[in-house]
Amino acid sequence: MYDFSDRIKNLSGSATREILKLTQRPEIISFAGGMPAEECLPCAVIKEIANDILGGANADKILQYGRTEGCDALNVRLVEYLAELGIATDTEGIQVVSGGQQGLDLMCKAFLNKGDTVLAENPTYLAFLQIAKTYEADVVGVDADENGLVISDLENKLKKHKPKLLYTVPTFSNPTGKTYSAENRKAIVELCLKYDTVIIEDDPYGRLRYGGDEVPLMKTMDSHGIVVYITSFSKTVAPSLRVAVACGEKELIRKLTIGKQGADVHSPALTQTIIAEYLKRGYFAPVLDRNIAIYRERRDSMLAALDRYMPSGVEYTRPDGGLFIWVTLPEYFDAKEMLPDAIARNVAYIQGEEFFPKSGDGKNTMRLNFSNSSPEKIDRGISVLSDLIKDKMRKHKEITL
Amino acid sequence: MYDFSDRIKNLSGSATREILKLTQRPEIISFAGGMPAEECLPCAVIKEIANDILGGANADKILQYGRTEGCDALNVRLVEYLAELGIATDTEGIQVVSGGQQGLDLMCKAFLNKGDTVLAENPTYLAFLQIAKTYEADVVGVDADENGLVISDLENKLKKHKPKLLYTVPTFSNPTGKTYSAENRKAIVELCLKYDTVIIEDDPYGRLRYGGDEVPLMKTMDSHGIVVYITSFSKTVAPSLRVAVACGEKELIRKLTIGKQGADVHSPALTQTIIAEYLKRGYFAPVLDRNIAIYRERRDSMLAALDRYMPSGVEYTRPDGGLFIWVTLPEYFDAKEMLPDAIARNVAYIQGEEFFPKSGDGKNTMRLNFSNSSPEKIDRGISVLSDLIKDKMRKHKEITL
Repeated sequence: MYDFSDRIKNLSGSATREILKLTQRPEIISFAGGMPAEECLPCAVIKEIANDILGGANADKILQYGRTEGCDALNVRLVEYLAELGIATDTEGIQVVSGGQQGLDLMCKAFLNKGDTVLAENPTYLAFLQIAKTYEADVVGVDADENGLVISDLENKLKKHKPKLLYTVPTFSNPTGKTYSAENRKAIVELCLKYDTVIIEDDPYGRLRYGGDEVPLMKTMDSHGIVVYITSFSKTVAPSLRVAVACGEKELIRKLTIGKQGADVHSPALTQTIIAEYLKRGYFAPVLDRNIAIYRERRDSMLAALDRYMPSGVEYTRPDGGLFIWVTLPEYFDAKEMLPDAIARNVAYIQGEEFFPKSGDGKNTMRLNFSNSSPEKIDRGISVLSDLIKDKMRKHKEITL
Repeated sequence: MYDFSDRIKNLSGSATREILKLTQRPEIISFAGGMPAEECLPCAVIKEIANDILGGANADKILQYGRTEGCDALNVRLVEYLAELGIATDTEGIQVVSGGQQGLDLMCKAFLNKGDTVLAENPTYLAFLQIAKTYEADVVGVDADENGLVISDLENKLKKHKPKLLYTVPTFSNPTGKTYSAENRKAIVELCLKYDTVIIEDDPYGRLRYGGDEVPLMKTMDSHGIVVYITSFSKTVAPSLRVAVACGEKELIRKLTIGKQGADVHSPALTQTIIAEYLKRGYFAPVLDRNIAIYRERRDSMLAALDRYMPSGVEYTRPDGGLFIWVTLPEYFDAKEMLPDAIARNVAYIQGEEFFPKSGDGKNTMRLNFSNSSPEKIDRGISVLSDLIKDKMRKHKEITL
């Protein structure tokens, strides 16, 4: 009935969200989402902070209109926070965004015309694919291996497509959990500089490290202002506060500010000030340490259960951090087709094909989230999933015999 | 240095925001903004609610990822709130947005292709003009008189441009303070139905009525789903919570949801739940009544001061509500050129030309905000402004003699 815009008329909401709705039944063991564990959310501390700031002398300022760039109090803390990560910036080099996702949206708004090409890892964060679609851009996948992007493939595609943007989640990637090596990052930054392509370094998971060594951020290797670093407090403090930050050259950040001015004027000062005080009062590190211990146990449980139950022919990543393990089934599997059977057995995951730029790729893959289930549930869920996979393998053998 | 998108490369932030920065000096009497008075913000009540909900059994849910459509608790209250305004809807007919502005952005996202035309009142809310630019659409102004849009002009422009959207602020408009009559609204809805144009009824100010009779909302005259009603709690509760709602047909709202999913996943549950509880606990009406008394006094003070000080030849609206009075100076005035002189005398306003779709229109107009200054300051500010205008008139007379 309505004459919708080209960008939106064929979009029908992410498949994941529809699955997530299914998985909210209490009997389901869900490896489908990407949510922090609710027991990891620092409710008491946030209550304390909210109470203090809303009862304080600046309460009316916190409820009044504010600056698009972000609250002063938060921006000062963010500069310190980024400095700890090795990023030297100032308040003009950052834009507060309502979740990392708004950062991605504003980057696309600032750079992409209809028909432009962006590069992204094969596979990549599915919401980025959705966002790029709303800007009527084409996403081309770059091949990846255990060290990061395949540099020869990246160079070919930079040459061929002259993309304005390369989108990456280089640390504990969504969906694979993998981390690009330092050498790989350096090569990516050098190549993108050569081909005049801006890199989005999306880093929601980097602080959730359970093992292995720190790898320098691409932003710290960027002497020409071609990397925009986006990090969020969604996975480390609380998702629903929707506080994240984009960091880059002043000229570029200014365009994100203009984009945000139109989009929503500014993020709520209440949630911004909560994060500012959270950082100021020193809650960040101890809460993160506590949560890392919980998540590490869950990652270990999932890896142990995969090792224990999965039949040979099933491969999976062993991430040093983040929230996800990526499973590759034998070629003939279709994880999307298998999902209703899994849900019938009360286990949920996300079919990996959602994360591939090219439709039809990755049909035999799935993403498993381990942060939001207890070790016991993880063990049970992986056992059930493994049985299902073994059943399918048997049937396949029968048919092909 | 960067190859920005066409939509953003020539945008340089709204002029208003730059002016607002100037006007934050304490000695300035500012009629420039559009902000609620800080003494009208219900800090204590919001503190109480935040404390309760963050200490309650659902605190972890409030900090966890939520639905794009909005929190259940808020959506149920919003359906009731809209029913009080005469709008019958259900939770599938509403989308929570981060301020009314996000509603405008998502409507443009859902409807506008590059090169499309939208109609808006002459003059209109300047941020809408900015948003339409980011969607590379053209805004054509429709003439208006004291009853609302000039219907013959509207029909001519609907015929000529076949616009997808008509943008209106029909109650206590920003910037003029004027209200469309019931007959005018009915004629607009009928015409837009005939020409297949969706109407945005933007209503941030409608609850701030200081006199006159209620006028039915266009949404209540809409039997074919062509009106999207957007209202916000920014002016009635607190701007920085960024809680507003868009209401329309399910099919259309679904597209706003998809647009928001890409833009920022969802609005913070904390701010949404604060508004839900605020409505549930019955704070809305009494706080509004208190604020209306304060704003009515300020409107009256400004009108009295304008009557007292302004020379003949200066015209202004006498709004029944909202936050603004619109001043029309003699034709030869340039309010933008005069602004530095006003600021030198410690008074600020916004030049009216910012609110016109066509560049160069309205040079002799200005918008005055009365909500954010005491009656004393209003009297003093208008007196100073009137003196400045009289000086300019005298000089003009000398030159033309």
